[in-house]
Amino acid sequence: MQLLKTKILEEGQALSDNILKVDSFLNHRMDPVLMHEMGKEFKRRFQDEKIDVVLTIESSGIGPGVMAALELEVPMIFARKRKSVTLTDDLVTANVYSFTKKEANEIAISNKFINSGDRVLIIDDFLANGQAALGLMEICHKVNATVVGIGIVIEKAFQDGGEKLREQGVRVESLARIEALSLGEITFVEEREGAIHE
Amino acid sequence: MQLLKTKILEEGQALSDNILKVDSFLNHRMDPVLMHEMGKEFKRRFQDEKIDVVLTIESSGIGPGVMAALELEVPMIFARKRKSVTLTDDLVTANVYSFTKKEANEIAISNKFINSGDRVLIIDDFLANGQAALGLMEICHKVNATVVGIGIVIEKAFQDGGEKLREQGVRVESLARIEALSLGEITFVEEREGAIHE
Repeated sequence: MQLLKTKILEEGQALSDNILKVDSFLNHRMDPVLMHEMGKEFKRRFQDEKIDVVLTIESSGIGPGVMAALELEVPMIFARKRKSVTLTDDLVTANVYSFTKKEANEIAISNKFINSGDRVLIIDDFLANGQAALGLMEICHKVNATVVGIGIVIEKAFQDGGEKLREQGVRVESLARIEALSLGEITFVEEREGAIHE
Repeated sequence: MQLLKTKILEEGQALSDNILKVDSFLNHRMDPVLMHEMGKEFKRRFQDEKIDVVLTIESSGIGPGVMAALELEVPMIFARKRKSVTLTDDLVTANVYSFTKKEANEIAISNKFINSGDRVLIIDDFLANGQAALGLMEICHKVNATVVGIGIVIEKAFQDGGEKLREQGVRVESLARIEALSLGEITFVEEREGAIHE
Protein backbone atom coordinates (compact mmCIF):
# COMPACT_ATOMS: atom_id res chain seq x y z
CA MET A 1 0.00 0.00 0.00
CA GLN A 2 1.88 2.98 -1.37
CA LEU A 3 0.20 5.61 0.83
CA LEU A 4 1.33 3.72 3.93
CA LYS A 5 4.87 3.14 2.66
CA THR A 6 5.21 6.84 1.92
CA LYS A 7 4.02 7.67 5.45
CA ILE A 8 6.48 5.16 6.94
CA LEU A 9 9.35 6.74 4.98
CA GLU A 10 8.26 10.26 5.93
CA GLU A 11 7.52 9.71 9.62
CA GLY A 12 8.81 6.28 10.68
CA GLN A 13 12.03 6.18 12.66
CA ALA A 14 14.33 3.18 12.43
CA LEU A 15 15.89 3.23 15.90
CA SER A 16 17.96 0.07 15.41
CA ASP A 17 18.04 -3.00 13.16
CA ASN A 18 14.89 -4.16 14.92
CA ILE A 19 12.84 -1.22 16.18
CA LEU A 20 10.66 0.89 13.92
CA LYS A 21 8.92 3.73 15.66
CA VAL A 22 5.65 4.73 14.00
CA ASP A 23 3.99 6.39 16.96
CA SER A 24 3.24 9.55 15.00
CA PHE A 25 0.51 7.88 12.92
CA LEU A 26 -0.10 4.26 13.94
CA ASN A 27 0.28 3.23 17.56
CA HIS A 28 0.15 6.35 19.72
CA ARG A 29 -0.98 9.25 17.59
CA MET A 30 -3.23 7.89 14.86
CA ASP A 31 -3.90 9.30 11.42
CA PRO A 32 -7.59 8.40 11.11
CA VAL A 33 -7.82 9.16 7.39
CA LEU A 34 -4.86 6.88 6.62
CA MET A 35 -6.37 4.29 8.96
CA HIS A 36 -9.64 4.47 7.05
CA GLU A 37 -7.72 3.89 3.81
CA MET A 38 -6.09 0.85 5.44
CA GLY A 39 -9.56 -0.47 6.24
CA LYS A 40 -10.55 -0.09 2.58
CA GLU A 41 -7.36 -1.84 1.48
CA PHE A 42 -7.97 -4.77 3.85
CA LYS A 43 -11.46 -5.07 2.40
CA ARG A 44 -10.07 -5.03 -1.14
CA ARG A 45 -7.53 -7.73 -0.37
CA PHE A 46 -10.03 -10.03 1.31
CA GLN A 47 -12.99 -9.23 -0.96
CA ASP A 48 -13.20 -12.83 -2.24
CA GLU A 49 -13.69 -14.17 1.30
CA LYS A 50 -16.83 -14.41 3.36
CA ILE A 51 -16.02 -12.75 6.71
CA ASP A 52 -18.26 -12.73 9.77
CA VAL A 53 -16.10 -10.90 12.28
CA VAL A 54 -12.80 -9.06 12.69
CA LEU A 55 -10.61 -10.07 15.64
CA THR A 56 -7.76 -7.92 16.93
CA ILE A 57 -5.89 -7.24 20.15
CA GLU A 58 -5.65 -4.17 22.34
CA SER A 59 -4.48 -1.48 22.05
CA SER A 60 -2.78 -0.77 18.73
CA GLY A 61 -4.87 -3.25 16.76
CA ILE A 62 -8.12 -1.47 17.56
CA GLY A 63 -7.71 1.42 15.11
CA PRO A 64 -6.92 -0.67 12.02
CA GLY A 65 -9.35 -3.37 13.18
CA VAL A 66 -12.34 -1.08 13.57
CA MET A 67 -11.69 0.54 10.18
CA ALA A 68 -11.47 -2.87 8.47
CA ALA A 69 -14.68 -3.91 10.23
CA LEU A 70 -16.39 -0.66 9.19
CA GLU A 71 -15.57 -1.34 5.55
CA LEU A 72 -16.45 -5.06 5.76
CA GLU A 73 -19.66 -4.17 7.65
CA VAL A 74 -19.05 -6.80 10.33
CA PRO A 75 -18.47 -6.50 14.10
CA MET A 76 -14.97 -6.28 15.53
CA ILE A 77 -13.77 -7.89 18.75
CA PHE A 78 -10.58 -6.95 20.52
CA ALA A 79 -8.86 -9.45 22.79
CA ARG A 80 -7.86 -8.05 26.15
CA LYS A 81 -4.44 -8.63 27.60
CA ARG A 82 -5.73 -9.23 31.11
CA LYS A 83 -9.06 -9.92 32.61
CA SER A 84 -11.35 -6.97 33.08
CA VAL A 85 -13.66 -6.70 36.05
CA THR A 86 -16.74 -6.51 33.87
CA LEU A 87 -15.67 -9.39 31.61
CA THR A 88 -17.22 -11.98 33.90
CA ASP A 89 -18.52 -14.52 31.40
CA ASP A 90 -16.63 -17.55 30.30
CA LEU A 91 -13.46 -16.55 28.54
CA VAL A 92 -11.52 -18.11 25.71
CA THR A 93 -7.83 -17.53 26.35
CA ALA A 94 -4.36 -18.01 24.88
CA ASN A 95 -0.89 -17.21 26.15
CA VAL A 96 1.19 -14.72 24.21
CA TYR A 97 4.85 -14.02 24.87
CA SER A 98 5.98 -10.51 24.03
CA PHE A 99 9.63 -10.42 22.96
CA THR A 100 9.46 -6.60 23.06
CA LYS A 101 8.26 -6.44 26.65
CA LYS A 102 9.85 -9.75 27.70
CA GLU A 103 6.71 -10.94 29.44
CA ALA A 104 3.92 -13.41 28.90
CA ASN A 105 0.34 -12.18 28.78
CA GLU A 106 -2.87 -14.03 28.79
CA ILE A 107 -5.14 -12.74 26.07
CA ALA A 108 -8.84 -13.34 26.33
CA ILE A 109 -12.15 -12.84 24.63
CA SER A 110 -15.63 -13.54 25.90
CA ASN A 111 -16.88 -16.86 24.52
CA LYS A 112 -20.14 -15.19 23.48
CA PHE A 113 -18.83 -13.31 20.51
CA ILE A 114 -17.11 -15.80 18.20
CA ASN A 115 -19.09 -18.91 17.44
CA SER A 116 -18.33 -22.28 15.95
CA GLY A 117 -18.20 -21.91 12.17
CA ASP A 118 -17.61 -18.15 12.20
CA ARG A 119 -15.19 -16.93 9.55
CA VAL A 120 -12.70 -14.62 11.24
CA LEU A 121 -10.33 -12.03 9.83
CA ILE A 122 -7.49 -11.28 12.25
CA ILE A 123 -6.06 -7.74 12.08
CA ASP A 124 -3.02 -6.36 13.87
CA ASP A 125 -0.71 -3.39 13.56
CA PHE A 126 2.61 -5.27 13.50
CA LEU A 127 3.78 -8.75 12.58
CA ALA A 128 7.25 -9.63 13.87
CA ASN A 129 7.63 -13.02 15.55
CA GLY A 130 3.95 -13.79 15.14
CA GLN A 131 3.17 -14.47 18.79
CA ALA A 132 0.09 -12.23 18.94
CA ALA A 133 -1.32 -13.60 15.67
CA LEU A 134 -0.71 -17.19 16.82
CA GLY A 135 -2.50 -16.44 20.09
CA LEU A 136 -5.49 -14.99 18.24
CA MET A 137 -5.53 -18.05 15.95
CA GLU A 138 -5.45 -20.32 19.01
CA ILE A 139 -8.54 -18.54 20.36
CA CYS A 140 -10.32 -19.06 17.02
CA HIS A 141 -9.41 -22.74 16.96
CA LYS A 142 -10.64 -23.21 20.53
CA VAL A 143 -14.12 -22.09 19.50
CA ASN A 144 -14.01 -23.94 16.15
CA ALA A 145 -14.03 -20.74 14.12
CA THR A 146 -12.22 -20.52 10.78
CA VAL A 147 -9.37 -18.05 10.32
CA VAL A 148 -9.96 -16.61 6.87
CA GLY A 149 -6.73 -14.68 6.94
CA ILE A 150 -4.54 -12.24 8.79
CA GLY A 151 -4.30 -8.59 7.83
CA ILE A 152 -1.23 -6.75 9.07
CA VAL A 153 -0.36 -3.08 8.78
CA ILE A 154 3.45 -3.45 8.99
CA GLU A 155 5.24 -6.78 8.66
CA LYS A 156 8.85 -7.02 9.72
CA ALA A 157 9.65 -9.56 7.01
CA PHE A 158 13.13 -10.08 8.43
CA GLN A 159 11.58 -11.76 11.48
CA ASP A 160 10.04 -15.19 11.21
CA GLY A 161 6.41 -14.54 12.14
CA GLY A 162 5.16 -14.20 8.57
CA GLU A 163 6.91 -17.40 7.53
CA LYS A 164 5.55 -19.32 10.52
CA LEU A 165 2.00 -18.25 9.74
CA ARG A 166 2.22 -18.81 5.96
CA GLU A 167 3.77 -22.26 6.53
CA GLN A 168 0.56 -23.16 8.33
CA GLY A 169 -1.34 -22.27 5.16
CA VAL A 170 -2.76 -19.05 6.57
CA ARG A 171 -3.24 -16.21 4.16
CA VAL A 172 -1.30 -13.20 5.45
CA GLU A 173 -1.81 -9.80 3.84
CA SER A 174 0.58 -7.09 4.99
CA LEU A 175 0.06 -3.53 3.81
CA ALA A 176 3.78 -2.80 4.11
CA ARG A 177 6.55 -5.40 4.37
CA ILE A 178 9.90 -4.32 5.70
CA GLU A 179 12.94 -6.19 4.47
CA ALA A 180 15.49 -4.53 6.70
CA LEU A 181 15.97 -1.80 9.25
CA SER A 182 19.13 -0.08 10.34
CA LEU A 183 19.64 3.12 12.25
CA GLY A 184 17.83 5.74 10.18
CA GLU A 185 17.19 3.43 7.20
CA ILE A 186 14.06 1.52 6.18
CA THR A 187 14.01 -0.93 3.25
CA PHE A 188 10.79 -2.46 1.95
CA VAL A 189 10.39 -5.87 0.37
CA GLU A 190 10.06 -5.30 -3.39
CA GLU A 191 6.73 -6.61 -4.53
CA ARG A 192 3.72 -6.08 -6.71
CA GLU A 193 0.91 -4.49 -4.63
CA GLY A 194 -1.49 -7.08 -3.31
CA ALA A 195 0.55 -10.08 -4.45
CA ILE A 196 1.76 -11.21 -1.05
CA HIS A 197 -0.68 -13.93 -0.21
CA GLU A 198 0.03 -17.53 -1.02
CA MET B 1 -28.36 10.01 20.48
CA GLN B 2 -31.39 7.82 19.88
CA LEU B 3 -29.57 5.11 17.89
CA LEU B 4 -27.21 4.58 20.82
CA LYS B 5 -29.95 4.62 23.45
CA THR B 6 -31.88 2.01 21.47
CA LYS B 7 -28.76 -0.16 21.29
CA ILE B 8 -28.18 0.22 25.04
CA LEU B 9 -31.76 -0.84 25.75
CA GLU B 10 -31.51 -3.78 23.34
CA GLU B 11 -28.08 -5.10 24.30
CA GLY B 12 -26.90 -3.40 27.48
CA GLN B 13 -27.12 -5.39 30.70
CA ALA B 14 -27.63 -3.63 34.02
CA LEU B 15 -25.83 -6.02 36.34
CA SER B 16 -26.37 -3.93 39.50
CA ASP B 17 -27.19 -0.35 40.46
CA ASN B 18 -23.74 0.60 39.24
CA ILE B 19 -22.53 -1.75 36.50
CA LEU B 20 -23.74 -1.48 32.91
CA LYS B 21 -22.31 -4.11 30.61
CA VAL B 22 -22.11 -2.98 27.00
CA ASP B 23 -19.43 -5.37 25.81
CA SER B 24 -21.53 -6.54 22.86
CA PHE B 25 -21.11 -3.26 20.96
CA LEU B 26 -18.86 -0.78 22.79
CA ASN B 27 -15.94 -2.05 24.84
CA HIS B 28 -15.17 -5.62 23.80
CA ARG B 29 -17.10 -6.38 20.65
CA MET B 30 -17.55 -3.14 18.70
CA ASP B 31 -20.27 -2.18 16.27
CA PRO B 32 -18.19 -0.15 13.80
CA VAL B 33 -21.17 1.33 11.97
CA LEU B 34 -22.69 2.60 15.22
CA MET B 35 -19.25 3.84 16.24
CA HIS B 36 -18.97 5.75 12.97
CA GLU B 37 -22.36 7.34 13.68
CA MET B 38 -21.05 8.35 17.12
CA GLY B 39 -18.10 10.02 15.40
CA LYS B 40 -20.51 12.01 13.22
CA GLU B 41 -22.58 12.98 16.27
CA PHE B 42 -19.50 14.19 18.18
CA LYS B 43 -18.59 16.29 15.14
CA ARG B 44 -22.13 17.71 15.01
CA ARG B 45 -22.09 18.62 18.69
CA PHE B 46 -18.70 20.31 18.57
CA GLN B 47 -19.07 21.81 15.08
CA ASP B 48 -18.81 25.37 16.42
CA GLU B 49 -15.40 24.69 17.96
CA LYS B 50 -11.98 24.73 16.35
CA ILE B 51 -10.36 21.40 17.21
CA ASP B 52 -6.76 20.43 16.48
CA VAL B 53 -6.57 16.98 17.99
CA VAL B 54 -8.65 14.29 19.70
CA LEU B 55 -7.27 12.81 22.92
CA THR B 56 -8.50 9.55 24.40
CA ILE B 57 -7.26 6.69 26.57
CA GLU B 58 -6.66 3.02 25.81
CA SER B 59 -8.38 0.72 25.18
CA SER B 60 -12.10 1.40 24.99
CA GLY B 61 -11.71 5.06 24.07
CA ILE B 62 -9.84 4.27 20.86
CA GLY B 63 -12.86 3.18 18.79
CA PRO B 64 -15.04 6.24 19.50
CA GLY B 65 -11.95 8.48 19.46
CA VAL B 66 -10.70 7.42 16.05
CA MET B 67 -14.19 7.77 14.54
CA ALA B 68 -14.58 11.29 15.98
CA ALA B 69 -11.11 12.16 14.65
CA LEU B 70 -11.99 10.73 11.22
CA GLU B 71 -15.04 12.96 11.01
CA LEU B 72 -13.25 16.01 12.41
CA GLU B 73 -10.30 15.32 10.08
CA VAL B 74 -7.74 15.73 12.86
CA PRO B 75 -5.24 13.30 14.41
CA MET B 76 -6.13 11.25 17.48
CA ILE B 77 -3.80 10.41 20.36
CA PHE B 78 -4.49 7.73 22.90
CA ALA B 79 -2.90 7.93 26.33
CA ARG B 80 -1.30 4.71 27.48
CA LYS B 81 -1.86 3.32 30.94
CA ARG B 82 1.74 2.29 31.43
CA LYS B 83 4.98 3.07 29.75
CA SER B 84 5.63 1.29 26.51
CA VAL B 85 9.11 0.13 25.57
CA THR B 86 9.08 2.13 22.35
CA LEU B 87 7.64 5.25 23.99
CA THR B 88 11.07 6.53 24.93
CA ASP B 89 10.65 10.25 24.47
CA ASP B 90 9.72 12.63 27.20
CA LEU B 91 6.30 11.82 28.53
CA VAL B 92 3.53 13.97 29.92
CA THR B 93 1.80 12.03 32.67
CA ALA B 94 -1.08 12.10 35.13
CA ASN B 95 -2.29 9.72 37.79
CA VAL B 96 -5.71 8.16 37.43
CA TYR B 97 -7.43 6.11 40.09
CA SER B 98 -9.80 3.46 38.80
CA PHE B 99 -12.68 2.82 41.20
CA THR B 100 -13.69 -0.18 39.07
CA LYS B 101 -10.30 -1.85 39.25
CA LYS B 102 -9.35 -0.31 42.61
CA GLU B 103 -5.89 0.66 41.40
CA ALA B 104 -4.00 3.77 40.39
CA ASN B 105 -2.51 3.97 36.93
CA GLU B 106 -0.14 6.43 35.45
CA ILE B 107 -1.41 7.57 32.08
CA ALA B 108 1.03 9.07 29.63
CA ILE B 109 1.39 10.61 26.23
CA SER B 110 4.50 11.55 24.35
CA ASN B 111 5.18 15.27 24.70
CA LYS B 112 5.65 15.55 20.92
CA PHE B 113 2.03 15.27 19.92
CA ILE B 114 0.10 17.93 21.82
CA ASN B 115 1.56 21.40 21.71
CA SER B 116 1.04 24.59 23.62
CA GLY B 117 -2.05 26.31 22.26
CA ASP B 118 -3.56 23.17 20.71
CA ARG B 119 -7.32 22.89 21.03
CA VAL B 120 -8.10 19.40 22.29
CA LEU B 121 -11.33 17.38 22.25
CA ILE B 122 -11.24 14.62 24.86
CA ILE B 123 -13.26 11.48 23.99
CA ASP B 124 -13.98 8.48 26.20
CA ASP B 125 -16.42 5.60 26.28
CA PHE B 126 -17.69 6.08 29.84
CA LEU B 127 -17.98 8.92 32.32
CA ALA B 128 -18.63 7.84 35.89
CA ASN B 129 -16.49 9.47 38.58
CA GLY B 130 -14.52 11.44 36.01
CA GLN B 131 -11.06 10.25 36.98
CA ALA B 132 -9.94 9.39 33.45
CA ALA B 133 -11.27 12.66 32.02
CA LEU B 134 -9.59 14.66 34.81
CA GLY B 135 -6.31 12.85 34.09
CA LEU B 136 -6.56 13.66 30.39
CA MET B 137 -7.35 17.31 31.25
CA GLU B 138 -4.31 17.41 33.54
CA ILE B 139 -2.13 16.25 30.65
CA CYS B 140 -3.56 19.02 28.44
CA HIS B 141 -2.97 21.64 31.12
CA LYS B 142 0.64 20.48 31.60
CA VAL B 143 1.41 21.23 27.95
CA ASN B 144 -0.67 24.44 27.91
CA ALA B 145 -3.22 23.04 25.52
CA THR B 146 -6.88 24.10 25.69
CA VAL B 147 -9.57 21.53 26.41
CA VAL B 148 -12.37 22.45 24.01
CA GLY B 149 -14.69 19.89 25.52
CA ILE B 150 -15.24 16.29 26.50
CA GLY B 151 -17.25 13.87 24.39
CA ILE B 152 -18.57 10.81 26.20
CA VAL B 153 -20.42 7.83 24.80
CA ILE B 154 -22.24 6.82 28.00
CA GLU B 155 -22.44 9.03 31.08
CA LYS B 156 -23.54 7.52 34.36
CA ALA B 157 -25.28 10.71 35.42
CA PHE B 158 -25.94 9.27 38.90
CA GLN B 159 -22.21 9.43 39.62
CA ASP B 160 -20.48 12.75 40.18
CA GLY B 161 -17.98 12.86 37.31
CA GLY B 162 -20.14 14.92 34.97
CA GLU B 163 -20.92 17.43 37.71
CA LYS B 164 -17.25 17.75 38.70
CA LEU B 165 -16.24 18.46 35.10
CA ARG B 166 -19.12 20.85 34.32
CA GLU B 167 -18.45 22.75 37.56
CA GLN B 168 -15.00 23.51 36.17
CA GLY B 169 -16.69 25.10 33.17
CA VAL B 170 -15.82 22.27 30.80
CA ARG B 171 -18.32 21.50 28.10
CA VAL B 172 -19.31 17.84 28.40
CA GLU B 173 -21.36 16.20 25.64
CA SER B 174 -22.61 12.72 26.41
CA LEU B 175 -24.35 10.72 23.70
CA ALA B 176 -26.39 8.83 26.30
CA ARG B 177 -26.93 9.85 29.93
CA ILE B 178 -28.08 7.25 32.38
CA GLU B 179 -30.12 8.43 35.33
CA ALA B 180 -30.31 5.13 37.15
CA LEU B 181 -29.45 1.47 36.91
CA SER B 182 -30.89 -1.44 38.80
CA LEU B 183 -30.69 -5.13 38.09
CA GLY B 184 -32.15 -5.51 34.59
CA GLU B 185 -33.34 -1.89 34.35
CA ILE B 186 -31.82 1.12 32.60
CA THR B 187 -33.30 4.63 32.90
CA PHE B 188 -32.04 7.52 30.80
CA VAL B 189 -31.99 11.17 31.80
CA GLU B 190 -34.87 12.86 29.97
CA GLU B 191 -33.48 15.56 27.75
CA ARG B 192 -33.66 17.26 24.43
CA GLU B 193 -31.01 15.79 22.11
CA GLY B 194 -27.84 17.86 22.06
CA ALA B 195 -28.92 20.14 24.89
CA ILE B 196 -26.59 18.82 27.54
CA HIS B 197 -23.80 21.31 27.46
CA GLU B 198 -23.78 24.35 29.61
